[in-house]
Amino acid sequence: MNKSRFEAFSDGVFAIAITLLVLAFALPQPHLGTNRELATALFAMWPELIAYALSFGVIGIMWQNHHALFRLVERIDRPTIVWNLLLLAGTAFIPFATRTLGEYPAMHASAFLYGLVLTETATCYNLMLNHLIRVGAFDERVSEATLAATVRAYRVGWAVYAAATLLALVLPVASFAAYVAIAVYYLIPRGVDADI
Amino acid sequence: MNKSRFEAFSDGVFAIAITLLVLAFALPQPHLGTNRELATALFAMWPELIAYALSFGVIGIMWQNHHALFRLVERIDRPTIVWNLLLLAGTAFIPFATRTLGEYPAMHASAFLYGLVLTETATCYNLMLNHLIRVGAFDERVSEATLAATVRAYRVGWAVYAAATLLALVLPVASFAAYVAIAVYYLIPRGVDADI
Amino acid sequence: MNKSRFEAFSDGVFAIAITLLVLAFALPQPHLGTNRELATALFAMWPELIAYALSFGVIGIMWQNHHALFRLVERIDRPTIVWNLLLLAGTAFIPFATRTLGEYPAMHASAFLYGLVLTETATCYNLMLNHLIRVGAFDERVSEATLAATVRAYRVGWAVYAAATLLALVLPVASFAAYVAIAVYYLIPRGVDADI
Amino acid sequence: MNKSRFEAFSDGVFAIAITLLVLAFALPQPHLGTNRELATALFAMWPELIAYALSFGVIGIMWQNHHALFRLVERIDRPTIVWNLLLLAGTAFIPFATRTLGEYPAMHASAFLYGLVLTETATCYNLMLNHLIRVGAFDERVSEATLAATVRAYRVGWAVYAAATLLALVLPVASFAAYVAIAVYYLIPRGVDADI
Repeated sequence: MNKSRFEAFSDGVFAIAITLLVLAFALPQPHLGTNRELATALFAMWPELIAYALSFGVIGIMWQNHHALFRLVERIDRPTIVWNLLLLAGTAFIPFATRTLGEYPAMHASAFLYGLVLTETATCYNLMLNHLIRVGAFDERVSEATLAATVRAYRVGWAVYAAATLLALVLPVASFAAYVAIAVYYLIPRGVDADI
Repeated sequence: MNKSRFEAFSDGVFAIAITLLVLAFALPQPHLGTNRELATALFAMWPELIAYALSFGVIGIMWQNHHALFRLVERIDRPTIVWNLLLLAGTAFIPFATRTLGEYPAMHASAFLYGLVLTETATCYNLMLNHLIRVGAFDERVSEATLAATVRAYRVGWAVYAAATLLALVLPVASFAAYVAIAVYYLIPRGVDADI
Repeated sequence: MNKSRFEAFSDGVFAIAITLLVLAFALPQPHLGTNRELATALFAMWPELIAYALSFGVIGIMWQNHHALFRLVERIDRPTIVWNLLLLAGTAFIPFATRTLGEYPAMHASAFLYGLVLTETATCYNLMLNHLIRVGAFDERVSEATLAATVRAYRVGWAVYAAATLLALVLPVASFAAYVAIAVYYLIPRGVDADI
Repeated sequence: MNKSRFEAFSDGVFAIAITLLVLAFALPQPHLGTNRELATALFAMWPELIAYALSFGVIGIMWQNHHALFRLVERIDRPTIVWNLLLLAGTAFIPFATRTLGEYPAMHASAFLYGLVLTETATCYNLMLNHLIRVGAFDERVSEATLAATVRAYRVGWAVYAAATLLALVLPVASFAAYVAIAVYYLIPRGVDADI
């Protein structure tokens, strides 16, 4: 499998999923008659707006992770493609989870569903990384230390998402806040080392 | 026709169609009042979820086939473009067939429609392959044995999809299960030989 | 303006518009209870299916034209970008015109709207071509004869679409049939000469 | 971060957002019975059509700006990615703002929302440009004069959009007209200097 076509396909799914997030916003039906009604309806969309911004950050982070990971990879084999498809299936599901979270921001079911999707993608990232290490798919210039650090970072990410997901069963709004906090944490620029 | 622009356009359609699959999921109308109602509504979407996962696998397999085929091809002529458009028209139709199958998982009409679309794409793949062989569009390093094996594999794929489609007229749920089994079979990684 | 990024953006719009055509198909509301009802509802979508296939062909032809034209072009200036945006605005509108034509296949207004959109894109192609010739944007290896033949072909295309559009004011179904006939004519592979 | 993958992802979002604009058009429900009713319904969509054309121009201009800016940039760092995500989040929101403006062309709330989105993207462009200059991310052949001119142009663009947004609180239709005038101004081709 040609790596550039693999990356282009993945980037396409990331870009489309991130742009479909806007479908979480729907105009009220039936047609409103006054400016005050419209302003009220638009203001009432603030949970959708937070969910939109959250998912934009989440997919943006995933896209960066994907890029950072595959920059170091030399060979794409069949199992990698299957893990990647499972990862993209989770990513492409985010617009629906976002719409659900935006419309039901304080319910256990919507916050749990959202967390499940993020945990699914984190699981795929971890298992795909394990596979890539096992088959020696990385560029030989990538050091053991970099791989070990990446494995640790992915495991922490998985644990954090899983914890926030379980939190949704008890305190959905706190879980929603945790998803936002995690996304902000990962988005804040920090120094990063790279071997190549 | 420049091969890279031909592949980029096809990849675009595959990536968009696969991401549009999420439109099979719709939030219940009108707005639900309790967490229990929302949880029940989300649980009731399990046929949609299976149909979503199925079609994600199906389009993912098609994308891989497309890549594997055109990696060996050197020249893209007009008839190839037309066959490819017919193939993409079937692929782009999958989101609707998926939504129908998800909403009506146990009906003959939806399982038959889904199978028809897969059979259409398999037909296009077979006829496009025949054309490519007839006009000698393959890289000269591709052996006769590879081409013959590809033709056989494509014919088997077509026959399997056609059989599952006909099964829909008798046992729709068995047909649905057959689509899933076929997708899983093709997704499981196996050793693959390649000439180039 | 970098030509490859210009082409990639245009190809993106073509690929997305062609894949959004599937949104012309909507499942009947409310949920149907029997297989017979579902089969009847799906059969009743044959005008949508013809409109879908028509528009798939139309956008496919436009994408090929775009490729064939810009393969010969060396420089992309600002006016070319503006003409191209107007062309893409017409292309991106096709999913709505298709849905309208599919739902109202025998009405003057829908057939006229569909023709208007095609005539708009044909107009943009003609004016963009005129501009490209006037500013000498073509590769110097492109002969005068090729340019003259392209101008003629574009004018004929425009006239044919405009005539079919006017026909919609009198005989909408004949106009619909004419759109299909034109698309089939352009899709049938024929020998093509190229300078480079 | 590889610059070409960064640009491809951004171009993908621009292309998808611009093509999703067509979702502002919805067929009237329930199904209309006569050609006159359909023609009337389509004619009544002229505000949607103006909003569609406006947003097509707006996103087209943004895409060009993005290209013109990053053609001069050599290094993409993490803060640039975050600014770019915030910019794309605004861009991907435009289809919803467009639908709102098209359905409520004469209301303060919709014209203000539309302006807010444009002002948000202009703010991101300005802050991203500041960052790129501060960290010296530009190609060394780019002159100080070019950078200073770009900073000025971006500030003027921001001020004009902010002014039109505030105008929406008083005269929504005038604000709508101002958005159109600004887009037409930026789309009209003019001579442009470039260092490289």
